[in-house]
Amino acid sequence: MRERLLAAEKVTAIEWREGALHLLDQRLLPFEERWLRYDTAAAVAEAIRSMVVRGAPAIGISAAYALVLGAQARLAAGGDWQAALETDFQVLADSRPTAVNLFWALNRMRERLLRLKENDDPLAALEAEARAIHLSDREANLTMAQLGADLIRKYQGNLQTVLTHCNTGALATGGFGTALGVIRAAYLDGLVERVYVDETRPWLQGARLTAWELANEGIPLSLNADAAAAHLMKTKGITWVIVGADRITANGDVANKIGTYQLAVNAMHHGVRFMVVAPSSTIDMSLASGDDIVIEERDGHELLELAGRRVAADVPAVNPVFDVTPADLIDFIITEKGIVERPDTAKMTRLMCRKRLH
Amino acid sequence: MRERLLAAEKVTAIEWREGALHLLDQRLLPFEERWLRYDTAAAVAEAIRSMVVRGAPAIGISAAYALVLGAQARLAAGGDWQAALETDFQVLADSRPTAVNLFWALNRMRERLLRLKENDDPLAALEAEARAIHLSDREANLTMAQLGADLIRKYQGNLQTVLTHCNTGALATGGFGTALGVIRAAYLDGLVERVYVDETRPWLQGARLTAWELANEGIPLSLNADAAAAHLMKTKGITWVIVGADRITANGDVANKIGTYQLAVNAMHHGVRFMVVAPSSTIDMSLASGDDIVIEERDGHELLELAGRRVAADVPAVNPVFDVTPADLIDFIITEKGIVERPDTAKMTRLMCRKRLH
Repeated sequence: MRERLLAAEKVTAIEWREGALHLLDQRLLPFEERWLRYDTAAAVAEAIRSMVVRGAPAIGISAAYALVLGAQARLAAGGDWQAALETDFQVLADSRPTAVNLFWALNRMRERLLRLKENDDPLAALEAEARAIHLSDREANLTMAQLGADLIRKYQGNLQTVLTHCNTGALATGGFGTALGVIRAAYLDGLVERVYVDETRPWLQGARLTAWELANEGIPLSLNADAAAAHLMKTKGITWVIVGADRITANGDVANKIGTYQLAVNAMHHGVRFMVVAPSSTIDMSLASGDDIVIEERDGHELLELAGRRVAADVPAVNPVFDVTPADLIDFIITEKGIVERPDTAKMTRLMCRKRLH
Repeated sequence: MRERLLAAEKVTAIEWREGALHLLDQRLLPFEERWLRYDTAAAVAEAIRSMVVRGAPAIGISAAYALVLGAQARLAAGGDWQAALETDFQVLADSRPTAVNLFWALNRMRERLLRLKENDDPLAALEAEARAIHLSDREANLTMAQLGADLIRKYQGNLQTVLTHCNTGALATGGFGTALGVIRAAYLDGLVERVYVDETRPWLQGARLTAWELANEGIPLSLNADAAAAHLMKTKGITWVIVGADRITANGDVANKIGTYQLAVNAMHHGVRFMVVAPSSTIDMSLASGDDIVIEERDGHELLELAGRRVAADVPAVNPVFDVTPADLIDFIITEKGIVERPDTAKMTRLMCRKRLH
């Protein structure tokens, strides 16, 4: 399976080469494939804020590389470079509040800094750590894809119809994808008939990114308005909703793209299974429940304008871009450490104590 | 109250003058207020199909006037004009399938035809009937607005926060609006603090039309993505979801704009009251339940393009524009004949036997 999954990897959105970070500009997809080159930490922070790169794991990986760029500049400037690097930590931490992978990656980079020995080359060490973060996310994707596909096979014999929200594929991660990774693996395994894709307003990650990824791979899909999901659950035989996550708290509550919560309520109402797929870097055991998660509210113009064109009346708009799905609406959380069924604090704690499966 | 409601009427979208039907082009709102003049039945049918005019009651009213235009032409052409008029009935009936008000209005016009006496002026009779349909819808709006506002007052003392979907205001009806009429009346009565408006993809009736109507009247509103509704119910103290209807079956099932169903599921989950407001012309006692309603599926390009610009990957899109909310998710149906609480077939039958309240 692993080899088939690797062979199916076609899209990357994050590349580290020639001492710079290269990001595929996700604001322009699928209409234009433009790569942007970043050589400062501040510029990467701005790329995260403005959603050149998005998706919780991809944000974390980008932030890790950004710190390599920051260290490069701070070292060249001389003086107490580690103190100066704190500015870069801060500007990256301030870029987006909800996805915890960002803070997880910054912490891993800080821990590497603290472990530096006198004769270490700091830049080489940080670059190796960032690459390791990137690589381990890719490995985690592959593991989760297999776990999720196996789970789908276990629960149902017939071809499945799946609904997904937002983008959780190669564009959102370091590799194969989280929720979309499971869907791709399950499709490769002959388990999935069709994928319904929520367009995912306001940023249209579903319409622009997920639809593009699935179409590129020839996986049968139908795009739909977010508000059509319940009607499709009732009329199209959807058996699984599979989504990613931006932060999972100790009790198994899941912050994810706005709309996930009402999908979960509707999945429960229709007896549709609800699966969350995220690497363990998404799990924040420091927060007891989803009530403690900061939900990012972005500017209302994301609703009022589209591609620079006004699409709404000139009125105030409220634009929370994440919501919290309580654990009791979730059937499964798939991580690279294993599967949690009907999550709660005890099960999440046991999961986090495990070593990685791979 | 009635006088205050009448004084608050500012927008009209349907005018019959100088022997022609004038429609405010709702495809262009709120960016341009352009009136189009129609003098043939076929042209009005096309206006309904292409959504120059939309909203179940407004479609019915427009179809009634269209038959006046049809009769005008058929009479001028001579011969068996009533037989020829059947073509106009058919082209209008084929324009949009889900809203029953269209068929109700056509039936009323047909019944008027059947009642024609030898010395009647057929054109004058049909025009009077169309005007009566228009006027009675306007009256129904006023009655429903008062009934709905009284109901809100009865159930809660504090200022209410309301969420609505699609457009059910002056633009969708012959007058004050259905759901939006109740919201406007309740606001005039000092009962409503804020209205959350679902943008209502794909056609953005909420973002373009409802937001515009509310802003014109100075009613505090926030526009939101459709997928944010559950999150707003949980975090913003929403107490009522108030929506219109395109067809209500004998058991109280409600077909309305896609997204209504998942709002109802979420309202139930959050203990938010769910009110449907529609004139009795929306009630179709010939259908036992919502399973029998034809749900219009429109072209996928409505999802893939916006204002003529591509916004999604080049993929298949499924675009059901209505869904069915089962009666057991509905707290109240408000009609001009009175209120039905927790609708079922017996209660709907009793309602339909009543005379109008006004």
